[in-house]
Amino acid sequence: MKRKSYFLTLLLIIGILVLGSNTEVHAAVPGETAFIFNTFSFLIHGLLVMFMACGFAMLESGLVRAKNTSTICLKNMALYSLAGLAFYVVGYSILYTDVNGGWIGSFNLFYNSSQAELDLINMTGSVGDATGAAKAKLEKGIAEASSKVIGANYSVMSDWFFQMVFVATAASIVSGTLAERIKVWPFLIFVVVLSAFIYPIQASWVWGAGWLSTMGFSDFAGSTLVHSTGGWAALAGAIILGARKGKYGENGEVNPMPGSNLPLATLGTFILWFGWFGFNGGSQLAMGSALDVTAISIVYVNTNLAAAGGVIAAMIATQLVYGKIDLTYALNGAIAGLVSITAGPDLQNHLISVLIGGVGGILVVVSVPLLDKFKIDDVVGAIPAHLIAGIWGTLCVGIFGSGSISTQLIGIVAIGVFVFFVSLIVWFILRSTVGIRAEEADEDTGLDSSEVGVRAYPEFTSK
Amino acid sequence: MKRKSYFLTLLLIIGILVLGSNTEVHAAVPGETAFIFNTFSFLIHGLLVMFMACGFAMLESGLVRAKNTSTICLKNMALYSLAGLAFYVVGYSILYTDVNGGWIGSFNLFYNSSQAELDLINMTGSVGDATGAAKAKLEKGIAEASSKVIGANYSVMSDWFFQMVFVATAASIVSGTLAERIKVWPFLIFVVVLSAFIYPIQASWVWGAGWLSTMGFSDFAGSTLVHSTGGWAALAGAIILGARKGKYGENGEVNPMPGSNLPLATLGTFILWFGWFGFNGGSQLAMGSALDVTAISIVYVNTNLAAAGGVIAAMIATQLVYGKIDLTYALNGAIAGLVSITAGPDLQNHLISVLIGGVGGILVVVSVPLLDKFKIDDVVGAIPAHLIAGIWGTLCVGIFGSGSISTQLIGIVAIGVFVFFVSLIVWFILRSTVGIRAEEADEDTGLDSSEVGVRAYPEFTSK
Amino acid sequence: MKRKSYFLTLLLIIGILVLGSNTEVHAAVPGETAFIFNTFSFLIHGLLVMFMACGFAMLESGLVRAKNTSTICLKNMALYSLAGLAFYVVGYSILYTDVNGGWIGSFNLFYNSSQAELDLINMTGSVGDATGAAKAKLEKGIAEASSKVIGANYSVMSDWFFQMVFVATAASIVSGTLAERIKVWPFLIFVVVLSAFIYPIQASWVWGAGWLSTMGFSDFAGSTLVHSTGGWAALAGAIILGARKGKYGENGEVNPMPGSNLPLATLGTFILWFGWFGFNGGSQLAMGSALDVTAISIVYVNTNLAAAGGVIAAMIATQLVYGKIDLTYALNGAIAGLVSITAGPDLQNHLISVLIGGVGGILVVVSVPLLDKFKIDDVVGAIPAHLIAGIWGTLCVGIFGSGSISTQLIGIVAIGVFVFFVSLIVWFILRSTVGIRAEEADEDTGLDSSEVGVRAYPEFTSK
Repeated sequence: MKRKSYFLTLLLIIGILVLGSNTEVHAAVPGETAFIFNTFSFLIHGLLVMFMACGFAMLESGLVRAKNTSTICLKNMALYSLAGLAFYVVGYSILYTDVNGGWIGSFNLFYNSSQAELDLINMTGSVGDATGAAKAKLEKGIAEASSKVIGANYSVMSDWFFQMVFVATAASIVSGTLAERIKVWPFLIFVVVLSAFIYPIQASWVWGAGWLSTMGFSDFAGSTLVHSTGGWAALAGAIILGARKGKYGENGEVNPMPGSNLPLATLGTFILWFGWFGFNGGSQLAMGSALDVTAISIVYVNTNLAAAGGVIAAMIATQLVYGKIDLTYALNGAIAGLVSITAGPDLQNHLISVLIGGVGGILVVVSVPLLDKFKIDDVVGAIPAHLIAGIWGTLCVGIFGSGSISTQLIGIVAIGVFVFFVSLIVWFILRSTVGIRAEEADEDTGLDSSEVGVRAYPEFTSK
Repeated sequence: MKRKSYFLTLLLIIGILVLGSNTEVHAAVPGETAFIFNTFSFLIHGLLVMFMACGFAMLESGLVRAKNTSTICLKNMALYSLAGLAFYVVGYSILYTDVNGGWIGSFNLFYNSSQAELDLINMTGSVGDATGAAKAKLEKGIAEASSKVIGANYSVMSDWFFQMVFVATAASIVSGTLAERIKVWPFLIFVVVLSAFIYPIQASWVWGAGWLSTMGFSDFAGSTLVHSTGGWAALAGAIILGARKGKYGENGEVNPMPGSNLPLATLGTFILWFGWFGFNGGSQLAMGSALDVTAISIVYVNTNLAAAGGVIAAMIATQLVYGKIDLTYALNGAIAGLVSITAGPDLQNHLISVLIGGVGGILVVVSVPLLDKFKIDDVVGAIPAHLIAGIWGTLCVGIFGSGSISTQLIGIVAIGVFVFFVSLIVWFILRSTVGIRAEEADEDTGLDSSEVGVRAYPEFTSK
Repeated sequence: MKRKSYFLTLLLIIGILVLGSNTEVHAAVPGETAFIFNTFSFLIHGLLVMFMACGFAMLESGLVRAKNTSTICLKNMALYSLAGLAFYVVGYSILYTDVNGGWIGSFNLFYNSSQAELDLINMTGSVGDATGAAKAKLEKGIAEASSKVIGANYSVMSDWFFQMVFVATAASIVSGTLAERIKVWPFLIFVVVLSAFIYPIQASWVWGAGWLSTMGFSDFAGSTLVHSTGGWAALAGAIILGARKGKYGENGEVNPMPGSNLPLATLGTFILWFGWFGFNGGSQLAMGSALDVTAISIVYVNTNLAAAGGVIAAMIATQLVYGKIDLTYALNGAIAGLVSITAGPDLQNHLISVLIGGVGGILVVVSVPLLDKFKIDDVVGAIPAHLIAGIWGTLCVGIFGSGSISTQLIGIVAIGVFVFFVSLIVWFILRSTVGIRAEEADEDTGLDSSEVGVRAYPEFTSK
């Protein structure tokens, strides 16, 4: 008996030592602490992405002419609002619920917290007033709810918030390309369709654990799923809508229509860069372990270096090609660098990030004239910076990262075909019904007079 | 004896199992970890609210005429500075110290960290150099101080920082309404009185655990305490100060005086929206548990959806009423949506948030002409967006939330009467002594010439 | 034997009680949790400092004339990019590796994560596919790597990110002083030299644990190391480059060349203020304990109060000296207040912060005319706000803080002499080779035409 008692006691000593040392260094982060870190990562990184809506608004405000500036401001604020509402009503559910390797999720309206979360909040709220058996029952309920909540690793609505701001980003991209000649309400109808259906369906293929994810297609934060998707929708729109009046001359000449406020465009680009740390960093989807936060650090660094590479490459390219450094290309170089690294910002050799971003920057300089050749009028250069660089970045996961080039190509093509043709159809229907193009006279005077009724700079310009 | 030994050992096994499982899932977050989360929530969310001062500066810069823009920039930077200083010298103490269900706190000048915090920092700083008994004494002191510090749940000055930025918000609201005709220094004197006394006294009634809080009045993040308070002070000022020269014609006509830079106003609104997640999210006042961070997630989502509702409702309303979508109403719709949800952003049915924000947006469209009817000249529309929407939002806690409508009404009226009449008196005294209105000639040339001496856009405008 | 068993069992009970109570309140934050907090503090605070690059861009855009605005936007985006690339290639290593009380670190190119971090990520990535012995080996490797990673207290690249944004800040300061007449590429060459060598070498003396740190020189977040360094480099550049054409008349008159967009300058200042909480708060270099996060709270509060003191002091000073409140001085007052507190923002008497910042604000008002007397043309007032206030702030650590005035002086002089003369030589070489000054005709038409090829405001101004 003595021996048994000894044995048990020794077992305990070992247990305590293990437990004690555990809590010092080796232990996994306790579940509830990890839950807070994970949830907070979604919130704070989502918030940074939310601010990118402001970045797009400023970038586009700076790159349109003064007579269309109020309109672009309005469109950006409205599209951010509508994207969130549409994603709340149905988009999130289509993207994330019951995809199971398939092509689309389920249609559950009005996404909400888990029952366990609501129980935890409500029972904790009432336990103070309860007594006796009722109190004991509540306490048991709280413990159970708490366990379930923490077991989910992050709060349900923090994830919704983080995913919602990505939809808004895709919608923002469309806005810039089609500026200066599209009517506001038809544009906003497209935003609703994009946010509620087009974006969620294609994103469900990868992030919803749909068929492309099963194949091994990899897109860390959305070079294809967000940026190319926005770009394809914009391209379809640009084709159906046509170029701005006077942009392309009869003899093939391209008439520059310079942006009215370049410091605003610079501000917008800096805000996008700032917000992109949330875009890529938050896409680690967890922060509750040393591994996760270390991975996030690496993502931050690659994100910054790729953007820097994009800026410098675009500057050198324009210096060589045009003999001057074009600021607007430098700005789009930053964005292209950021888009390029977005599919695989977890690279362990940071020098490759500089290269990936740099190529992105050069692609912008190369493809802007190409679009003009096809008379595709992209007011802010969103198609080069988001669509072209997005394709390049997604391929890079195959070239430099852990992905396969062929699978990456399949994903690029599948999503491209789907988004482009569905968008084309939606734009076509809109053109055939409500009409999407502003009246010719209104385009001359500027959409601010016809659509918004307030001029952006009434004291600075004659129009 | 054997049995006793067995019994104890078994007890230990159970204890260890409980402890072990505890640290895995069920355990509360350890005290010091929770302390860090709570403190950091105050800091990061407070920082977001701090940035709202920039948002107000940009919004107001965009909505005034160019000749008064430098002045409004200066006023916003100065008011943020002074609000902080006044709240440091005495405001915080009046709001939070020894209110005990009463009407006002105590007057302790120069708020500071707790003694335990200073001990913890200072003793830890000296323990490295100490030896022997002195060292042992210091280590004991550190342990005691640490215990006390952690027991307070968050660091003292993080709370001060978070509360300080709320005062600044209230002061920012006043600035916009009274723009383009008020002299700078008298305005700043009012800001000091507001920040040091008016705001802290009324806020002590609720957040300082004063009489209204005892009654059950509920205002999560300050629809009434911050936004209506700012609005009432602005209304009193607008009445005493009078309208801008030429705003209201002799035959009742209202002459529009359009803002000079709408992209700036849009930027300001986006920044406010961005900062509002700190305003409402941080008002959970803790982040050190799964429950708290889940609640914060819900708050973020409702905040976003209410703002979106405000934007879309205001757009539809202006389209129906005026035949165009007015950008400035859309911007104020966002703000009104945000103000409306601020009193109760913890709703578990997010659809109601959209509704609450949407009604806020419509209230703005309805009440701007109403103010004009009474010849109350509110340059940026702060009274509709903050005062009216603030009242609506506070009522919503009674209608949709856990509050009672009658108690909410009592709070709205009590704070309204107090802030409005005290402000009226202060404005009246200022008018009678130093004078608050710029000279008529200075109003014509613009306050930038008379008060600030530098023009906002010397190369863009003739004035 | 019974007694022995009892004794052991009692020991265990005590052990468990200690352990249990530990995890409740007294225990240090577990290692991995602290690791996450520390790493995240570097990331989020670094991100705030990153946004200061945007603040400088806006401040400088607002304070130059319209014809040079695109150029200053380009320079700011390019310098932030290049500073990061140069610091990645070699700067960080010179600053932090193997300084050992000396004058310079080692030259290891292309900074990267620790091997343990890469092992942790890679092994965790492969462990899912492994089985049997291979799996066991991987799991052992993961445990070892995890231990090493956590033992380093923060992730390697999070620290790189935080330090990198400080280099960019120093480079931003130079940009403003030399605006409106320097050629873009030569300026960017200087930025590379500054970021790769000059800044890292002098910073290694203190933050790299070099000789000045051994002496006891103290500079919490870089009043001298960042701000004065930027200021000295700017001063050397201003001397070699000369004043703008027409700035100083033949009879000693100083011709004002007012900034073109003061709301942008105000925006920039607010963004700098916002980002400065990251600058000073993150410089606590840890957030994984109650002590650290409490210290960060104190730093936030002092940072805010010093800036407020700077604004109000500069306003009062300009009102007294010029009879008007000069907005540009108020903005520079905020910056000077922030720079002044940066060397010692951990003061426990917050009133002294107000004083320190206030003196900083007055120093700006005093030293701007002084520079003009010496015909040193500092376009945005960066030398007063960063160099002069930086010296003052560094001295304050000796006057009010724990430092010695004489040691602080030695550091100020040593760094000043090094940075000023090395910069002078670099500027001189650049002038003698590639040339740094824009052509006279280009300075007249504006650098936007000659260097950047796109005008900032093509519709607002005649140029």
